[in-house]
Amino acid sequence: MPRWKPDAAERLETAALELFGEQGFERTTIAEIADRAGLTQRTFFNHFADKREVLFRMGPDLERALVAEISAGDADLPALDTAVRAMGVVADEMLEIRRDAAKRRYSVIAANPELLERELGKNAALTEAIADALNSRGCDPESAFITAAAAMLAQQTALRAWTRPGETRTLRELLQHSVRALRTTVGAS
Amino acid sequence: MPRWKPDAAERLETAALELFGEQGFERTTIAEIADRAGLTQRTFFNHFADKREVLFRMGPDLERALVAEISAGDADLPALDTAVRAMGVVADEMLEIRRDAAKRRYSVIAANPELLERELGKNAALTEAIADALNSRGCDPESAFITAAAAMLAQQTALRAWTRPGETRTLRELLQHSVRALRTTVGAS
Repeated sequence: MPRWKPDAAERLETAALELFGEQGFERTTIAEIADRAGLTQRTFFNHFADKREVLFRMGPDLERALVAEISAGDADLPALDTAVRAMGVVADEMLEIRRDAAKRRYSVIAANPELLERELGKNAALTEAIADALNSRGCDPESAFITAAAAMLAQQTALRAWTRPGETRTLRELLQHSVRALRTTVGAS
Repeated sequence: MPRWKPDAAERLETAALELFGEQGFERTTIAEIADRAGLTQRTFFNHFADKREVLFRMGPDLERALVAEISAGDADLPALDTAVRAMGVVADEMLEIRRDAAKRRYSVIAANPELLERELGKNAALTEAIADALNSRGCDPESAFITAAAAMLAQQTALRAWTRPGETRTLRELLQHSVRALRTTVGAS
């Protein structure tokens, strides 16, 4: 039996991150990405609408996993803890092994305002999905949105730290740290 | 003495919001905006780099006012209260009279993913400016960023409500309401 092989989308993402790192996002063509991955441009377009989208390959999987974990959470837990627990599970199961790829990805995105804007748009859509999942568990829409946005704020703060050179704590540890910092900040009055 | 007259940038913004509402953002040209404002395309480009930027005219003024209010705040106030107080002053002095324009603006932005992404990018830059202002007052960089992002979350929640049809509370009232909701959400554990 062959060992598990990355699927086409993952191979394209890996090739794209290598090329973006070597020669920049703007100067890399879709033809070069497909070539590096040993695939055709047609296959690229079967998976991604444009060159930018290859940087957001994990988005739909992460959203599905997060929404499933929120739905599976203990009904007695406060909404923010429900969202943060789900983010911790997803961090351990899907993100921790991808730290190097995440670092490369963030350096590409941070260098390009259009990519950064798209990242922010994707995060806003993910916030809405988390809010919907919390709302389905009985949280009123306003609290669900504020809770989702607060959890995303903690998650984004943790991701910034996690991809920083020299940082060795896991994403889950950094997430717990940023939630404590958020509680301190917002609680102090 | 003549009464105060809106400057060219403001006239261009007003004309643009009218035209975007009438015929959509995509279908409106810069020539039409300049024409409606009684100005030339050259004047348009003296003020704005492209058609999208006319929707973000107030951004630099709002940022300057917010940073000045944060710097002028009572040194004993906790960081989040400092940021929220500054946002309340700016809401009263610069935004409350612009509610109709804000409603038109939000409906244009919400209908166009590229505009929404740019709005999110501008908000991210504003968050950094608020964090820098808090950091200058002695808040450590991590707390300053989390506080700025939490204040922006409250502000964005308030703006969503403020521009909703039928909502009559002022932006400041809605801001205070969303800060209370944030404290409840984040405090509950």
